[in-house]
Amino acid sequence: MADDTKILLSENEIPTHWYNIQADLQWPLEPALHPGTKEPAGPADFAPLFPMELIMQEVSKEREIEIPDEVRDIYKLWRPTPLFRAHRLEKALGTPAKIFYKYEGGSPAGSHKPNTAVPQAYYNKAEGTKRITTETGAGQWGSALSFACNQMGIECKVYMVSASYKQKPYRKSMIETWGASVVPSPSPDTQSGRAILAANPDSPGSLGIAISEAVEDAATRDDTKYALGSVLNHVLMHQTVIGQEAIKQMEKANAYPDMVIGCVGGGSNFAGIAFPFVPDKIAGKDIRFIAVEPEACPTLTRGEFAYDFGDTAGMTPLLKMHTLGHTFVPNPIHAGGLRYHGMAPLISLMVANGLIEPRAYHQKTVFDAAVLFAQTEGIVPAPEPSHAIRAAIDEALICKETGEEKTILFHLCGHGHFDMSAYENYFSGNMVDYAYPEAEIKEAMSSVPVV
Amino acid sequence: MADDTKILLSENEIPTHWYNIQADLQWPLEPALHPGTKEPAGPADFAPLFPMELIMQEVSKEREIEIPDEVRDIYKLWRPTPLFRAHRLEKALGTPAKIFYKYEGGSPAGSHKPNTAVPQAYYNKAEGTKRITTETGAGQWGSALSFACNQMGIECKVYMVSASYKQKPYRKSMIETWGASVVPSPSPDTQSGRAILAANPDSPGSLGIAISEAVEDAATRDDTKYALGSVLNHVLMHQTVIGQEAIKQMEKANAYPDMVIGCVGGGSNFAGIAFPFVPDKIAGKDIRFIAVEPEACPTLTRGEFAYDFGDTAGMTPLLKMHTLGHTFVPNPIHAGGLRYHGMAPLISLMVANGLIEPRAYHQKTVFDAAVLFAQTEGIVPAPEPSHAIRAAIDEALICKETGEEKTILFHLCGHGHFDMSAYENYFSGNMVDYAYPEAEIKEAMSSVPVV
Repeated sequence: MADDTKILLSENEIPTHWYNIQADLQWPLEPALHPGTKEPAGPADFAPLFPMELIMQEVSKEREIEIPDEVRDIYKLWRPTPLFRAHRLEKALGTPAKIFYKYEGGSPAGSHKPNTAVPQAYYNKAEGTKRITTETGAGQWGSALSFACNQMGIECKVYMVSASYKQKPYRKSMIETWGASVVPSPSPDTQSGRAILAANPDSPGSLGIAISEAVEDAATRDDTKYALGSVLNHVLMHQTVIGQEAIKQMEKANAYPDMVIGCVGGGSNFAGIAFPFVPDKIAGKDIRFIAVEPEACPTLTRGEFAYDFGDTAGMTPLLKMHTLGHTFVPNPIHAGGLRYHGMAPLISLMVANGLIEPRAYHQKTVFDAAVLFAQTEGIVPAPEPSHAIRAAIDEALICKETGEEKTILFHLCGHGHFDMSAYENYFSGNMVDYAYPEAEIKEAMSSVPVV
Repeated sequence: MADDTKILLSENEIPTHWYNIQADLQWPLEPALHPGTKEPAGPADFAPLFPMELIMQEVSKEREIEIPDEVRDIYKLWRPTPLFRAHRLEKALGTPAKIFYKYEGGSPAGSHKPNTAVPQAYYNKAEGTKRITTETGAGQWGSALSFACNQMGIECKVYMVSASYKQKPYRKSMIETWGASVVPSPSPDTQSGRAILAANPDSPGSLGIAISEAVEDAATRDDTKYALGSVLNHVLMHQTVIGQEAIKQMEKANAYPDMVIGCVGGGSNFAGIAFPFVPDKIAGKDIRFIAVEPEACPTLTRGEFAYDFGDTAGMTPLLKMHTLGHTFVPNPIHAGGLRYHGMAPLISLMVANGLIEPRAYHQKTVFDAAVLFAQTEGIVPAPEPSHAIRAAIDEALICKETGEEKTILFHLCGHGHFDMSAYENYFSGNMVDYAYPEAEIKEAMSSVPVV
């Protein structure tokens, strides 16, 4: 099986539990703080937004949390996902490295996002939620939650970052096909949206703004809760089905990764592939974890590890994380899913302690990698995981220099079928590598509250 | 395994041979005729357009033709494809029928088309072809051939039906990502294109016109051959990997289909799923084959079984097939891949002899079915296979009436991620069911040559 192109698992090999890394980390994860009092936030503070089961998962120290049967049943629509050996990419690079990639693009929504959308909708349904709000950037998360809510019979409203709403009309149609409603954010439907529109009627929006709108909507309606597609501990945990499957598949391929690579926006796809390998690292195994972000939104490589709000308006609890300042609005790069000022606290903690290496790339070199990948492996990748492809290729090229036969595992978290306008932009020669937004970040950093 | 959601095969279960139905049909397949002399066309007549190996496959009576290792290696990028049991759709319908679907949307191009694009590019490369031209309707075939030519290092030019070129810009970008060039058809690049543009500068184009352009381009350049994505015997044969896999998968599910359903434009995806089951039918097994087409282009249900040209300009050999007349330009329904005046001669022969049942639907009822499918099974289907979904649902609803527990197998030949504007049109309430184009078909039928 070592030389197969795809390593597959059967349905009974879908993981039965999520892996909770909080059980194993040796550093304390600092608590979320109430946005008003700045005291540690308790379950009651989160209750207007999330069902209690998810609040409990957020702070759980149990190593394994069982996946409900109904969730596993829906997972079967696309899981287990394939692990590929990138024979053709290796050959094109002339590298002695072995490159593997775990591919989540075969899910209904075309990315890894349904892995957490389905359990979030499930626990909401179990606790009687009738309606869920959320934000979406590139549209991956909004379509995944729409799909999940549709499966559970829950109404869903998506606040979609305005720039993406215009760039990606097909994502909007997909969200509607699964029955959710979707509005461009900032929208006139919320107080925070109206405030931003008043200041700038042409605001392109940002994930931070859209989160403010979705949170406000949920907090002000009794029948409504809120769902987040990344950042939070429970969201990252739901994604660990990816890495657990990858471990089994690498074993079947008689291989073990020297490094695990993923892109990071809020951190969930990276956590999904990487966290299940962390116990090995803690036990002394020599394995690197590389988190790749855009230069246009360099949260881990240039941000500060501090308490900050998750949204622009300052409505969410304060999280201890790498941040560029919650008022930062990144330039409109094509990797919309990576345009976020903050980061998952778990990822930030591991970066701060040297367990994860962060790295940033400009978008043109990312698309160079994406096109080489499409032309060798066939799959046209989304702009977000193309950051991981760039890093994997660079590591493979280092092996070509040194002659080392390293094993590289990266996460291809979604296909690019909704991102072809980005490829059009790339081939036209008009793609822009934005200069480091030093002044904007400096200004936004002044919005970080003193705790 | 009977109750699994997905039935998977491993890579070593990819078929080793294509199944050639010409070995088993009891009716004579009438020969193609030279467009000028109207005498049976021989290999030399096809040589300017196709490599000799494909010409030989076109007329072969061998039951099995071996798949070259290099082709099987590329197939491994997405094959074997999954067979799904549609548990959630069955439940939503409340039917006692068992519904299975074979899904080809996981290929790089998102449809079944690479199954023949890869061998066609392979045999061209083996015989020294430097450049291949083709036509594409919805863009499925153009992107598949672009992918295949890129794998083989062959230059590729795609004439894309102008209406689709405008409706589906993302397909165009995908074709370019794999390195092919693409122009809207009718184009100023060929004599036949220029003639049509002179008569109607706003011509929306048609598959027939685009074929004329691609054939002319190939016939007038020594370094160039032509590739067709459907209709011809060898193309249909390459698609039989689908049905061969489905037979194995149905066995693993401990099931056998009472009926096999697919959509038909030129006939290749239908042939792919259905032909491998035909020997059972010939041997006396009770199994139905249902070919579903659009009412806007009702080739099998309203056309005539006669010799006609494959293209609008009358440059191709004459084929004995169901036709609406080679000058017929169908209304711009969203299922661009089904907008073809003709039909595969093999399919036509089997319809004429009652082995295959044809059926036609209007597009609104097709999209009703597509949305129900997306909301139950998750996958957003392309408009073309949504015709098959409509028929499968109707058959399942008949079972609900009668209480019969029939087993239905249909072919989901591609996803709809490039067709979301069609869904947008559907949800807007503006989708049109075109009236039967009686006058247009009557006029076009007068273009059918007397042989």
